[in-house]
Amino acid sequence: MFGKVLVANRGEIAVRVIRACRELGVRTVAIYSTADESSMAVRLADEAVHVGGSPAKQSYLNIPNIIGAAVKTGADAVHPGYGFLSEDPYFAEICADHGITFIGPPPQVMEALGDKATARRLMTDAGLPLLPGTLSAPASVEEAVEAAADVGFPLLLKASAGGGGRGITIVPSESELPDAVRATRAEAQTLFNDPSVYLERYLSPAKHIEVQVFCDDHGNAIHLGERDCSVQRRNQKLLEESPSPVVDEELRFQLGEAAVRGARAVGYRGAGTMEFLLDEDNRFWFMEMNARIQVEHPVTELVTSVDLVAEQLRVAAGEPLSVKQEDVVLRGHAVECRINAEDPERDFAPTPGVLEVCQPPGGPWVRFDSHCTPGYTVPPHYDSMIGKVIVWATDRSAALNRMDRALTELRVEGPGVHTTASFHRELVRHPVFRQGGVSTDFLRNHL
Amino acid sequence: MFGKVLVANRGEIAVRVIRACRELGVRTVAIYSTADESSMAVRLADEAVHVGGSPAKQSYLNIPNIIGAAVKTGADAVHPGYGFLSEDPYFAEICADHGITFIGPPPQVMEALGDKATARRLMTDAGLPLLPGTLSAPASVEEAVEAAADVGFPLLLKASAGGGGRGITIVPSESELPDAVRATRAEAQTLFNDPSVYLERYLSPAKHIEVQVFCDDHGNAIHLGERDCSVQRRNQKLLEESPSPVVDEELRFQLGEAAVRGARAVGYRGAGTMEFLLDEDNRFWFMEMNARIQVEHPVTELVTSVDLVAEQLRVAAGEPLSVKQEDVVLRGHAVECRINAEDPERDFAPTPGVLEVCQPPGGPWVRFDSHCTPGYTVPPHYDSMIGKVIVWATDRSAALNRMDRALTELRVEGPGVHTTASFHRELVRHPVFRQGGVSTDFLRNHL
Repeated sequence: MFGKVLVANRGEIAVRVIRACRELGVRTVAIYSTADESSMAVRLADEAVHVGGSPAKQSYLNIPNIIGAAVKTGADAVHPGYGFLSEDPYFAEICADHGITFIGPPPQVMEALGDKATARRLMTDAGLPLLPGTLSAPASVEEAVEAAADVGFPLLLKASAGGGGRGITIVPSESELPDAVRATRAEAQTLFNDPSVYLERYLSPAKHIEVQVFCDDHGNAIHLGERDCSVQRRNQKLLEESPSPVVDEELRFQLGEAAVRGARAVGYRGAGTMEFLLDEDNRFWFMEMNARIQVEHPVTELVTSVDLVAEQLRVAAGEPLSVKQEDVVLRGHAVECRINAEDPERDFAPTPGVLEVCQPPGGPWVRFDSHCTPGYTVPPHYDSMIGKVIVWATDRSAALNRMDRALTELRVEGPGVHTTASFHRELVRHPVFRQGGVSTDFLRNHL
Repeated sequence: MFGKVLVANRGEIAVRVIRACRELGVRTVAIYSTADESSMAVRLADEAVHVGGSPAKQSYLNIPNIIGAAVKTGADAVHPGYGFLSEDPYFAEICADHGITFIGPPPQVMEALGDKATARRLMTDAGLPLLPGTLSAPASVEEAVEAAADVGFPLLLKASAGGGGRGITIVPSESELPDAVRATRAEAQTLFNDPSVYLERYLSPAKHIEVQVFCDDHGNAIHLGERDCSVQRRNQKLLEESPSPVVDEELRFQLGEAAVRGARAVGYRGAGTMEFLLDEDNRFWFMEMNARIQVEHPVTELVTSVDLVAEQLRVAAGEPLSVKQEDVVLRGHAVECRINAEDPERDFAPTPGVLEVCQPPGGPWVRFDSHCTPGYTVPPHYDSMIGKVIVWATDRSAALNRMDRALTELRVEGPGVHTTASFHRELVRHPVFRQGGVSTDFLRNHL
């Protein structure tokens, strides 16, 4: 096992990684921006290094300073969390150049998966079902129009270098295509510094079902069941659950088999997520593979009893997976609500500020993953997530009741600060949602 | 299910019961003393009724006022928690007289079990192993001396009406007996308003192993495995775990069978705990039966996935047990540390006061059952427990590492306030304790 791990992230995921390290007896180094100098990660880590100003470019994306911090503190591994540098093959390579283990898949695998069009081609080759679309990015508007004839409408334009639901445009018909290509290319350039876009048939209604996979360096590859992330707003996940209310044993087997086959095909290592779309006839199509731990990993942890972050550390340290496929059993039901400092009444506008009150929910089978404490200031520089409420119960209905109870207990208050907790309470009580099996257009149609 | 439950208690167990009720859709009434008027139970319950002054006799033991509150609010059941009126058959009878369900065993069962000497006789009749001792309280010092000849030395003098480890004297030899009888009788009178004491052989070293049992009104009686509560200080439990590191499948079967037999023999209903002493040769003897939910119930919940408080409510409402014996499986390992506002450096003297900082531990498989929030004042009137840190992991070693991590995160600070968290960190790191199988004299010998 590693002696010391540098956590190249902030917020709740930095705290999550530090907790896992501490339980494994691994020392930790937090990095922090100016805005985060009194953060929980800084307080809980064994050491902390200031790596730059508050904007992420100066700190959490500042590769030279982060590598410098790792070298200076003698860290022998880096955990990148999610977001920021977590899927940057260049960062992983520089870590390797400095003899530091990057806790994630090999750089070339990240590079292949990071280009979504390339990932589509790899998964097609592996025999996975894909929606009609292009396997590479059209070089011009004309090429896009030509490709669209085969893909069919409505279709999606997606940034090849995109992810996290950003850089996506729905194109209802051919007449809108040229303008949409130009606009999405411009957006992709701004967001991801790469204008490439590819085409994919737009499936609606559809469910977002993803499969957690895990591979080690000893030839083992397993899946840990699915997560249903269909409750989305503008392609952003708000609530996730495991198992999916619409996936039965047979479908789970098929999804898992496809996910493991895809992961093996690209030579994956560590924790990864295969995202699929599922239609109303239970047919599924590969969407993309995320080469990192996901925000919503806790729901899988609670139904499988596998500590995914500890497992990442072990696998990165060269150990074999601690669980075999036949030992993976989904028990009960887990639900996660992302609590953001946003105002649901004002189109989910971020509301950074001081949290004068920050009282987590407690009691049986309630978990709160958060970096916030009373007096903490939510900075305006990063995403607005202030924590995740995760619950487990023996069945879905009991889990939703428990989530409702937990959300009632959660108190986050400060001048001008709103949270999405009120939205989530409405959601977990909604009769259509409680019935199960909502698709990604549920919020648009019902809330 | 009940429409409205009055919670006749305070502190963390009142919050625990309110949480269970809320998840079952049951409305709740909190009662509170003057000192508790801004307590978490008051805030979380649907209604709250002031029942008297701060001393427990004026409020949490004030039967007329509590019954009055239940009648006034239209509660159809009362949950007594632990301590206070939870094992008072007279209170249960008055509830019944008012048409209110007392969530616990029938009054006559409580009465029989409440007299520890009577309980010994009942369990002897049921064929349970008992240490040599008296089956009724000797009427005089002379009778006690005579009985002691059969019991043998060293022996324990125990208050018949006692419980919770109070009213117990170790008597090393016959010469100390007369004075000890007089002193213990006086103490028993003061503590329990009943001077009766009985004799029991003193077994040392021994382990405190208790078995959670559950019975319904439909003839079902099950056990949910054991808890090891051997870490004690002056007969007060400090840390509990499940399963016990010294109990194997065969012994668990024997303990469980004995526990269920004893519970059936007394016509038990609801959640109860059969306490046993276990010697170094794995022989066990019945000690007493507690006719209520225990402080340490969460460790059983985490290894069995059964919500014991919800089950109490269902059984009291006439439903059959939701689990069968063959479905009870102990998975992984759970540990609970009782966090008290006491100073371990000054002989665990209570340190009531204002908690300026109260930051619970969080993250995976960590549970904090507490009624405390920042700004809360720990009143001097009641026991000094401010919360329970409970963790689960796949094995004991990982659970102790997780507990260590959780205790590191817990922050409770205020002028003059100390907590036992530092003591617990030392304990979970202690090499002898980590080895497993310590007996009740561990603290005396090692810490």
